[in-house]
Amino acid sequence: MVFSAPVKDMVFNIEHLSGWAELCHLPQFQDVELETAGAIIEECARFAEEVLAPLNASGDRAASHFNGESVVLPEGFKEAYEQFVDTGWQSLQHPVEFGGQGLPRAVGAACGEIFNAANMSFALCPLLTDGAIDALLTAGSDEQKQTYLHNLVAGRWTGTMNLTEPQAGSDLSLLRTRAEPRGDGSYAISGTKIFITYGDHEQAENIVHLVLARIPGAPAGVKGISLFLVPKYFVNADGSLGGRNAVRTVSIEHKLGIRASPTAVLEYEGATGYLIGEENRGLDIMFIMMNSARFAVGIQGIAVAERAYQQALGYARERVQSRPVDGSSNESVAIIRHPDVRRLLTRMRAVTEGCRALAAATAGWHDLARHADDPDRRAEAKAVAEFLVPLVKGYSTEMSVDVASCGIQVHGGMGFIEETGAAQHYRDARILPIYEGTTAIQANDLVGRKTLRDGGRTAYRIAEMIAGTEAELNASDSVPARVVARKLARAREAFLAVVDFVVLETPRDPQTVFAGSVPYLMLAGNLMAGWQLARSLIVAEAELARGVEPEFMAAKIATARFYADHILNEAEVLRERIVEGGESMLGAAAAAL
Amino acid sequence: MVFSAPVKDMVFNIEHLSGWAELCHLPQFQDVELETAGAIIEECARFAEEVLAPLNASGDRAASHFNGESVVLPEGFKEAYEQFVDTGWQSLQHPVEFGGQGLPRAVGAACGEIFNAANMSFALCPLLTDGAIDALLTAGSDEQKQTYLHNLVAGRWTGTMNLTEPQAGSDLSLLRTRAEPRGDGSYAISGTKIFITYGDHEQAENIVHLVLARIPGAPAGVKGISLFLVPKYFVNADGSLGGRNAVRTVSIEHKLGIRASPTAVLEYEGATGYLIGEENRGLDIMFIMMNSARFAVGIQGIAVAERAYQQALGYARERVQSRPVDGSSNESVAIIRHPDVRRLLTRMRAVTEGCRALAAATAGWHDLARHADDPDRRAEAKAVAEFLVPLVKGYSTEMSVDVASCGIQVHGGMGFIEETGAAQHYRDARILPIYEGTTAIQANDLVGRKTLRDGGRTAYRIAEMIAGTEAELNASDSVPARVVARKLARAREAFLAVVDFVVLETPRDPQTVFAGSVPYLMLAGNLMAGWQLARSLIVAEAELARGVEPEFMAAKIATARFYADHILNEAEVLRERIVEGGESMLGAAAAAL
Repeated sequence: MVFSAPVKDMVFNIEHLSGWAELCHLPQFQDVELETAGAIIEECARFAEEVLAPLNASGDRAASHFNGESVVLPEGFKEAYEQFVDTGWQSLQHPVEFGGQGLPRAVGAACGEIFNAANMSFALCPLLTDGAIDALLTAGSDEQKQTYLHNLVAGRWTGTMNLTEPQAGSDLSLLRTRAEPRGDGSYAISGTKIFITYGDHEQAENIVHLVLARIPGAPAGVKGISLFLVPKYFVNADGSLGGRNAVRTVSIEHKLGIRASPTAVLEYEGATGYLIGEENRGLDIMFIMMNSARFAVGIQGIAVAERAYQQALGYARERVQSRPVDGSSNESVAIIRHPDVRRLLTRMRAVTEGCRALAAATAGWHDLARHADDPDRRAEAKAVAEFLVPLVKGYSTEMSVDVASCGIQVHGGMGFIEETGAAQHYRDARILPIYEGTTAIQANDLVGRKTLRDGGRTAYRIAEMIAGTEAELNASDSVPARVVARKLARAREAFLAVVDFVVLETPRDPQTVFAGSVPYLMLAGNLMAGWQLARSLIVAEAELARGVEPEFMAAKIATARFYADHILNEAEVLRERIVEGGESMLGAAAAAL
Repeated sequence: MVFSAPVKDMVFNIEHLSGWAELCHLPQFQDVELETAGAIIEECARFAEEVLAPLNASGDRAASHFNGESVVLPEGFKEAYEQFVDTGWQSLQHPVEFGGQGLPRAVGAACGEIFNAANMSFALCPLLTDGAIDALLTAGSDEQKQTYLHNLVAGRWTGTMNLTEPQAGSDLSLLRTRAEPRGDGSYAISGTKIFITYGDHEQAENIVHLVLARIPGAPAGVKGISLFLVPKYFVNADGSLGGRNAVRTVSIEHKLGIRASPTAVLEYEGATGYLIGEENRGLDIMFIMMNSARFAVGIQGIAVAERAYQQALGYARERVQSRPVDGSSNESVAIIRHPDVRRLLTRMRAVTEGCRALAAATAGWHDLARHADDPDRRAEAKAVAEFLVPLVKGYSTEMSVDVASCGIQVHGGMGFIEETGAAQHYRDARILPIYEGTTAIQANDLVGRKTLRDGGRTAYRIAEMIAGTEAELNASDSVPARVVARKLARAREAFLAVVDFVVLETPRDPQTVFAGSVPYLMLAGNLMAGWQLARSLIVAEAELARGVEPEFMAAKIATARFYADHILNEAEVLRERIVEGGESMLGAAAAAL
């Protein structure tokens, strides 16, 4: 099944949902033309379609493995990565100062989706490198930046994040890895880290491990964790590579999905590490970069959903089976003509487009937060962007599992046969609601840091903006706009009821509120995606009236309406579960578990 | 992870939900005591836990394969199957006349669930044999019954169903396999059949293939399909086995799940087959046995959900991570204490118990349909049982995918590692909404044969019975009973609105109705499962008042209430999608696909 990147939808989103009109006037982006962005995305699509997509299924079959000495990636990965580096794709959204292209995040998000849709296992490596770059930009010393950033931004070196240990997953307070000061400014790092994505491989010259560890005498719990940079190969003063550091690959995991991506167990045996930022502030730095990494994982969800959708759509157009239910033909027809196949495909498409729209909007708020002139505007944008990140991560990834599952269903029995390809998406997608913080962790973040900390102010502010979109919709005389406005208002009211509940009830009864935290996240994510599709509908109606891309715009309007009628209406059930269901949930758990 | 069959829940369901009070007075079952049934289920649990469950993960890892000559099952399967035959488990619900034990279907269903929960790949073989037995009982000649049934009922021979061909999946009208009369009463069968579960293996002495094929000159389409019995080895007049028939194994599929179960491509090369029933009536016979087979696949859904639940529950009790959100401890606690883990586990449990309760009730109606004295009672029971079968199949299997996915989520990153075991359930479950008719095929059956054919009469009749349960609940003065009554009433009204819609709109606009057919199935399945849990609550309150099994009864009450608060309330969204959403669904499909 050939993959074709949804470039048109991406460019539409960048122009109309990510605040381009405001962004393009900022000093940071004044040299970036929309046409240039479109051309970059086109080029990215060509590279991903031609070079990365063909390695997706073969990479899954071969899987990465450890031969006792080194980690062996599937055939073709090293060569593809070399091309990726040569064409400069790692550098897209990074600062010009370190060799980056300084493009808006919305462009980076589009390209990230394309790489991941083409080959999620491949794209994980650059994703982790982005995380390491963000960490160094945030907290690295000048020397560290000069030593590492150019090669990371170029993609010649890759990055990893080393958080998890066997006993410490979501709970980093249980971390045991030790960092003993050596007296020369470096530390000796010792401990076992697991689930290290691209923790070892030979496709880059060096690997820059970012490692959380404890310095002796540090406070207990998360306030005693520091962040260290541990290179696989030492870097000499002249920038050349020296000997190997004392970090050893123990094994590569045998996983349900993303099997081409090597997930390593690493043993640090007194490896030399360099402190990033201040002692005991490791988690703060991690949290800053985590917003980016979580956003990127949300993008992976959209990517795998898009790929699963294209796979299912292609099959449904080809496969001939059964006559139409309305008796319109006596011959068997392509299954895409059967109502339930249409239902499945339309759902897959609407969810995917909704999540993509939400991610594009979030990327825009993020850029505004970093680059707007007005500090108040920056502060507002930061609050909105940070509110949206757990939704992009949690909602997009939970939905990607659903979409990939629908994709198998469209194929019938063929979907269950591995050679067909649909099953891989179902397996690959399943990690997404787990890594970089499970959906429950995202939901805790949404409740705690993003809703309670400012007394719901950002949530209410966003609800106001949604009400503004409703007013715009109601100003239209089209039926779809009116329908969408009505459904959007109902979902917004459900959201507000839940925000009130969270703000008022948490001090009194946190257990009940947190019992509804994931439903709250799903409600909020659903609403925000539906909101962005509603904004898209307004644009599409205007563009359609001007005769621009009539097919694309008509599809956008129809998809937005479908989303409102079929997906947004879940908000009310979620509200009921959260606000009225806590007692029965906790009661059932207490009695039955 | 040790598997422990939910025997107590099963016996509760048989006694209180499957109409035992009525069934046990029928001549067919007058010798069956509830204690005996319980003892059989206990014994079944012991066998499955000790012999079958330990082979589940190893069977998945090894998978079945074809070595060019014969099909090799994973280690231990043949020996386990021999024990299965020796202890007589195949014969449970089959007629005494052919060596069976003639037990009620509700007992057979319980044992079927246990076998499948222990090892779904293993249990598929007996499931298919049950299907072949049903077909022969329904339409076989006396000679065929005498020749084949004793060995099938004993499990010494196994059965298969050969429907699918590369071009003919859900659409059997496209079938091409030919059956040429030989003049001696037999036929020469030629053609390729795919997706044949246990289509070849060496664990039984013989395999009895049931094959759909066309006789030359037969009418086109499904009215020209006949059913044939094609033994792997010929059976001599004295009952001994003769030479091998001309059916050849081409390959064994490489599947997402149920990897230990060999799914064969079979080539019939002029194989000798014997007509079952009349020419061109093959599909009618298949449809009779399909109700049983579909019910059995629904049971598989419940089974894999139960296994996934136990796996997740066990992990959640052991894994220590993070402090409680309510600040009740400064130490990290077992994750089962975290609200979202409780939410996931409670949801898994409630859905599983709800589906199990629905299956038990359906089994009871089925037995009544076959064995009640009064023909009117038989007719009513038959209509109700047949209405419920697509719900047991469709709802239980769709929900099993959701439950298995939640099971991975409870494990966090460990769930994605194959060795943990949670991933296997997620892979295994995914076939269930597909084989024996996809959920869409079940939904077509629900709309067409089960709702429209009698003008909604059975649906309305069931809704009346549900209203009766509501009245019983309202007669109670307990809060859970009142809450459940209210939620049940709301879901029943949503169901009635949809039934009205289906009955009135199908003649006018079938496309729109069928666009909502799967949501209708999910609504109906959800309601019926919730209804059975509501009935369970009434019993449990009475039992609790008498001091019987207080922990079990309290858990049952709490689970029923959770289901009503958290799952039943989806009915209203589904109603809205079906009744109000058809236009936007078809519109979106037309514009966007």
